[in-house]
Amino acid sequence: MTTVNRQFTLAARPVGFPKHSDFKLVESPIPAPAEGEALIKMLWISVDPYMRGRMNAGTSYAPSVEIGGVMVGRTVGSVVESRHPDFSPGDLVTANAGWQEYSTERAKTLRKIDPGLAPISAHLGLLGAPGMTAYFGLLDICDPQSGETAVVSGAAGAVGSLAGQIAKIRGCRVVGTAGTDEKVRYVTEELGFDGAFNYKTVTDYEAKFAELCPSGIDVYFDNVGGALTDAVWMLTNLRARISVCGGISQYNLEKQEMGPRLLSLFNRRRLMMRGFIVSDYIRRWDEGVKQMAEWYRAGKIKIRDSVIEGFENTPEAFFGMLRGENIGKQLVKVAES
Amino acid sequence: MTTVNRQFTLAARPVGFPKHSDFKLVESPIPAPAEGEALIKMLWISVDPYMRGRMNAGTSYAPSVEIGGVMVGRTVGSVVESRHPDFSPGDLVTANAGWQEYSTERAKTLRKIDPGLAPISAHLGLLGAPGMTAYFGLLDICDPQSGETAVVSGAAGAVGSLAGQIAKIRGCRVVGTAGTDEKVRYVTEELGFDGAFNYKTVTDYEAKFAELCPSGIDVYFDNVGGALTDAVWMLTNLRARISVCGGISQYNLEKQEMGPRLLSLFNRRRLMMRGFIVSDYIRRWDEGVKQMAEWYRAGKIKIRDSVIEGFENTPEAFFGMLRGENIGKQLVKVAES
Repeated sequence: MTTVNRQFTLAARPVGFPKHSDFKLVESPIPAPAEGEALIKMLWISVDPYMRGRMNAGTSYAPSVEIGGVMVGRTVGSVVESRHPDFSPGDLVTANAGWQEYSTERAKTLRKIDPGLAPISAHLGLLGAPGMTAYFGLLDICDPQSGETAVVSGAAGAVGSLAGQIAKIRGCRVVGTAGTDEKVRYVTEELGFDGAFNYKTVTDYEAKFAELCPSGIDVYFDNVGGALTDAVWMLTNLRARISVCGGISQYNLEKQEMGPRLLSLFNRRRLMMRGFIVSDYIRRWDEGVKQMAEWYRAGKIKIRDSVIEGFENTPEAFFGMLRGENIGKQLVKVAES
Repeated sequence: MTTVNRQFTLAARPVGFPKHSDFKLVESPIPAPAEGEALIKMLWISVDPYMRGRMNAGTSYAPSVEIGGVMVGRTVGSVVESRHPDFSPGDLVTANAGWQEYSTERAKTLRKIDPGLAPISAHLGLLGAPGMTAYFGLLDICDPQSGETAVVSGAAGAVGSLAGQIAKIRGCRVVGTAGTDEKVRYVTEELGFDGAFNYKTVTDYEAKFAELCPSGIDVYFDNVGGALTDAVWMLTNLRARISVCGGISQYNLEKQEMGPRLLSLFNRRRLMMRGFIVSDYIRRWDEGVKQMAEWYRAGKIKIRDSVIEGFENTPEAFFGMLRGENIGKQLVKVAES
């Protein structure tokens, strides 16, 4: 076994879209676990939109990554060595280990994976933070009802693809937006969305939503923000509910984008909008995992991963995800399990 | 008694700020009540911001006034003649009679006024739609807690002055904005707001709010919208609640105003925003009236009216209210009771 660990640390705070020189690949000896810890070998690393916010200075909903600190992130790995009675070598676990090949983690921050439930990488998507984001962010905030129309932006992504399928299970007409024709086909032909369009080739969003949502829009699960969101708001029905999950259209802008002031719609149509992050639902996590696993096993929810192989390609996987190149969950495969 | 009725009808749909030629003063014979109706002589007419929306074509939350139709509005009047057993000449009532001196109204749309409760004009403010707007829009949507900081824009207006006082009753630090120094003095010295500023003379709203709200903002009752609202959003605390009551800064614009896209705040800070109109709370109306009357009698809520005398001055009262010249409720005194 190698004795060298590799990590990606934050080398610089990005201006606009992040680049390779914002990260540094660092080698160090593999650490030894202290009492109460386990040494984890990473198998899968998740790259997610929220990581872009962690690269900025100042307060977001979680602390920034320090310059020189290891990039944060959720991972699936196997226990190599354990100094805690609950874990043994070979155990498969999820960890908040970030962008590195080996890590010592306190046992209480690890969760053992049941490999019979779904592919182990699904613990970074369907059964992990993206799945819980879709589940709680859609159901708790929007409470979609049968017969209503739900729009999901970023529909082919890790969270959007699940949110749309949950809205279908709830009996909604579901319309999505995505950034390639292939993604549009994926969500309509494979995931059962009732309609979708490519926001990069459609120019009049409002006309397109009006065509795809003839009864207006009751529920909006927003991953994107910007002009797409303006168009959705314009077509909301009375008492529509809007879940603000993310706003990826704005994450890499170097200057503040301006948009039309549309607050009067909230008044006239009694709209409700709420932002959330998935950790708000930490106490209900098991409920979400159980339900998503059940829907998955029943064939009601389908998943697809976009996989890049090799730890050294983690930044590239992250950039590709930010550019919207992934369909479903973007993962880095670090090692075979 | 005169036999001539006077009415203001809508002559033209305004472009931007309304003007005298958008209304027409029409004379006609005083109508006779049909079976089940009463003839009402108007004593007080209310002019309110929402009326600006009714002058536009297209759907708002209520139908537009037709060209040639009598301007809508809430009134206090006395019964002159009744063809319904529940009403007798001399009864004081509230009615949706609009901008006219006499009107026949179906009895079931009238509410008898108890003159012992408060001045009869208070049924157009404190105990009427503005009071219920403040009561339900603040308490139901924002649920302010003792020790929190609440901001009210349009703080010296009919609704804002009440919303701020209710937030004080709830134990909040209350900060308001208004458009004259006299209004700022009114809300701080007479109504007990903890702070307020004149948005026409302060240039850096965010710095001013930061000074007046050292612990951030937990509750925002928004009557105004625009740049003031941007500044409030910037200073919101985690899980702040925003009630969208109105957006008077935008009502008379001839073209769409642009503003910074700030939705990421919703996500990071888990903000909740909801729009409403007071008729959403029609089933809880009696609860609101009872509580507001109780607070008024206990001296916990103070009211002030801005009164213009003479029916013919109703448009001028409306323009002045839109320009923010009123302190408290803007009323037209049509006749002595």
